[in-house]
Amino acid sequence: MIRIAVDAMGGDFGPSVTVPASLAFLESHPEAALVLVGQPAVLAAQPQFSALQSHPRCEVLAATEVVTMDDPIEVALRRKKDSSMRVAITQVKDGVAQAAVSAGNTGALMAIARYVLKTLEGIDRPAIATQLPNAAGGATTVLDLGANIDCTEDHLFQFAVMGSALVSAIANKASPSVGLLNIGEEAIKGSEVIKKAGELLRSASNSGDLNFHGNVEGNDIFKGVVDIVVCDGFVGNVALKASEGLASMIGGFIKAEFSRNILTKIAAIVAYPVLTAFKNRVDHRRYNGAALLGLRGLVFKSHGSADIFAFERALNRAYDAARNNLLDRVRERIAHAAPLLAKAATGQAPVASETAQSGEPTPLIHP
Amino acid sequence: MIRIAVDAMGGDFGPSVTVPASLAFLESHPEAALVLVGQPAVLAAQPQFSALQSHPRCEVLAATEVVTMDDPIEVALRRKKDSSMRVAITQVKDGVAQAAVSAGNTGALMAIARYVLKTLEGIDRPAIATQLPNAAGGATTVLDLGANIDCTEDHLFQFAVMGSALVSAIANKASPSVGLLNIGEEAIKGSEVIKKAGELLRSASNSGDLNFHGNVEGNDIFKGVVDIVVCDGFVGNVALKASEGLASMIGGFIKAEFSRNILTKIAAIVAYPVLTAFKNRVDHRRYNGAALLGLRGLVFKSHGSADIFAFERALNRAYDAARNNLLDRVRERIAHAAPLLAKAATGQAPVASETAQSGEPTPLIHP
Repeated sequence: MIRIAVDAMGGDFGPSVTVPASLAFLESHPEAALVLVGQPAVLAAQPQFSALQSHPRCEVLAATEVVTMDDPIEVALRRKKDSSMRVAITQVKDGVAQAAVSAGNTGALMAIARYVLKTLEGIDRPAIATQLPNAAGGATTVLDLGANIDCTEDHLFQFAVMGSALVSAIANKASPSVGLLNIGEEAIKGSEVIKKAGELLRSASNSGDLNFHGNVEGNDIFKGVVDIVVCDGFVGNVALKASEGLASMIGGFIKAEFSRNILTKIAAIVAYPVLTAFKNRVDHRRYNGAALLGLRGLVFKSHGSADIFAFERALNRAYDAARNNLLDRVRERIAHAAPLLAKAATGQAPVASETAQSGEPTPLIHP
Repeated sequence: MIRIAVDAMGGDFGPSVTVPASLAFLESHPEAALVLVGQPAVLAAQPQFSALQSHPRCEVLAATEVVTMDDPIEVALRRKKDSSMRVAITQVKDGVAQAAVSAGNTGALMAIARYVLKTLEGIDRPAIATQLPNAAGGATTVLDLGANIDCTEDHLFQFAVMGSALVSAIANKASPSVGLLNIGEEAIKGSEVIKKAGELLRSASNSGDLNFHGNVEGNDIFKGVVDIVVCDGFVGNVALKASEGLASMIGGFIKAEFSRNILTKIAAIVAYPVLTAFKNRVDHRRYNGAALLGLRGLVFKSHGSADIFAFERALNRAYDAARNNLLDRVRERIAHAAPLLAKAATGQAPVASETAQSGEPTPLIHP
C-alpha cells in the first residue's frame, strides 16, 4: 500500500480542490492510501469531506497553521511549524507516507522540504523538474522551474545529473540527452555561468558520464531535441509560465474563431471530435505535478491554480513515483555520479581516466 | 521618400530571402526606397536580383564581407569593417537611409549599431524590443530580447523608460503600463537585481513619471496585463523562443489531428476558413522585426530564420517607424526622462518634489 501525504490547504483554491481531487484519486487507485493534512474546521466545511473522512484508506491529520501564497520563506519555515505543508512533508520523513503533494507557495515548500528531508549527498540545492510535451511525441524534462533563482555553474551541473537520474529512472532510458538552455547554440553564447556550466557538462560528456547534447534554445524545449533541458529557476519559471499563457491564449483564439458566426459554429460541430482530441493533447493540466529533486524523500508540487482534474494528476504522479521507487533509483544514480559532482564542485570535471580510477567505471547514465 | 538600408547577406537564408522580400516590399510601398547591401557576386546569383538592381527605387551597395551567425562580436566589430551589416548601419549614420534592417547575428548587430550610431543620452545599453500578440486583442511590448544577458537594476529601469517611450510613440498611449517580469507577483520575489529594479520603478511610479504596474509573470505577457514587460535579455530571449516553439508545436498538433483519417479530413475542409483565420492570428512571422532601442538611429532586427513573408514584415516595420519619425519621438521622451535616468543611475530614484524642482514637471509618460 502506497500512502501519499496531501497538503489539503495549499493552492489558490485550498480544500475546495484538494478534497474532491483526493476522493477521486482514492476511488481510481484501490492500492493507494492518503494522509490528508489540514485545519479541521476548514476541511469540515467542504461538502465531500465527510466521504473522505469516513474512507477506509484515508487518514485525516490536523494542522493548526497554513502557509499562505505570500508568506516569506522565513515565516513559513520558522514561525509556522504546525503548517499543513510541513506536517505533510514530515509524514514522508517519518515513513508514514511515501510522497507528499502540495499546491502551496513554491519557495516555502522547497525550504521546508529541504529543512525537513535534507538533500541527497552531493546536491547543494534541490530543483523542481517537470515534463512538457514535445513535437517529437514525447516529453521534455525541464529543470529548474523556480526553486533556485541565482545559480552557479555547479548548480546547473547538478541539475543535469539529477535530471538524467530522473529520466533514466522514469523513462528507462539508459542515456538521456541533456541540453543547456542558452540564447544561442554556439558555445560562445551566454553569461559566464552558462559558459562554465557548458564546460563542466562537456567535460563530463567527453568522459562518458553524461550525455551532453550542447546548448539548446527556448524553442528546442517543445521541439524535443533533447530529453532534459537545464536552466536556472528564474529562466525556467518564466519559460514555463509564458508557455502556459500562450497555450491559453491560443485556446481562446480557437474558441473565438469558431464562435464567430453561424457558419463557423457549424464548422465547430463538425470539427468537435478533432478539437477535443487536440485540446486533450495540449491541456497543460495533464502535466501538473512537478518533482522536487535532490531530496531524501519524494515531494511533488502542484500548480497553485490547479483545478480538481489537475490536482488529481499531481497525486497520480506522486503515486507513480512512489510505486516505482523513484527515490531509490534517483539516489542510486546520484551516488554513481558522486565523483562527477565532487569534481565539478572543485571546479574540475573528471576526465575519463580519473573516473576509471575509482575502481570500476560508474557512469551516471549506465548504472 | 523614406529609404531603408537592407543587410542582404544576413539571416539563415541570406539573399534567397532578402532579395525577393525587398522586391515585394518596393512593389507594395510606392513611397519607399531601398539600399541593398551585400556581396555583388552572391547577390547576382539570385534569380530576382536583376529586377531589383534595375528598380528605380533601389540602390545596390557592395560590401566585401559578411558577418556569420557564429562570428564572435570582436571579429564582427573589429575585423569585418566592410561587412554588409556594418555598411547598412552606416547608411543610417550618414543620413542616406532612415532605418536599417538585418536578419544577421544579433550580438554583432547590436555591437556594430552601438559602435556606429552611439546610444542616446542616459542610455547605457540598447535593448531589443518586440511586440507579441495578447489575449486582450492588443500587443505586449517585451524588452530586452537578447541584447543584454547580465543586467543591473539601472539597465532594467532604462528598458522601462525606453519601452514606455516606444509604446507611447507608436501606440499614442499617454501612459503605457510597465510590468517587471518576475517569478511571482509579490514584491518579495526574485533576485536582488529584480527587487532593486522594482524599487526604482515603484519610486518613479509614485512620482508619476512612469506607470509601473508591478511584477508580472510569464503568462501575463500573453494575457495582456500590461503594455510593456521588462526583463533581462537572457530571460526575454528564452521566453520568446519557447513561445515560438510552443506555437509551432501546437500548429503541428492541429495539422496532425485534422489529417488523422477521412472524417477528420472532411472536418478540416469544413473548418478551413476558421483554421486559416486562426493561423493568421497566431502566425509569429507577422510579428517579425524587433526594434533596437536606445540608439541614435533606427535599426530593426529580423528573426534569423525569417522567410520572405517574415522579412518583408520587418521591412514594413522599419518603414513605418521611419515614416512616423519614431526616433525623434523616442529621443524626445527619453530626454524628458533624463532626470529620472540620472537619479536611477545614482541609486536614488527621484521623488515627486525633486522632479518638480527641475523647473517644469516633465514626466516621461505625458510629454
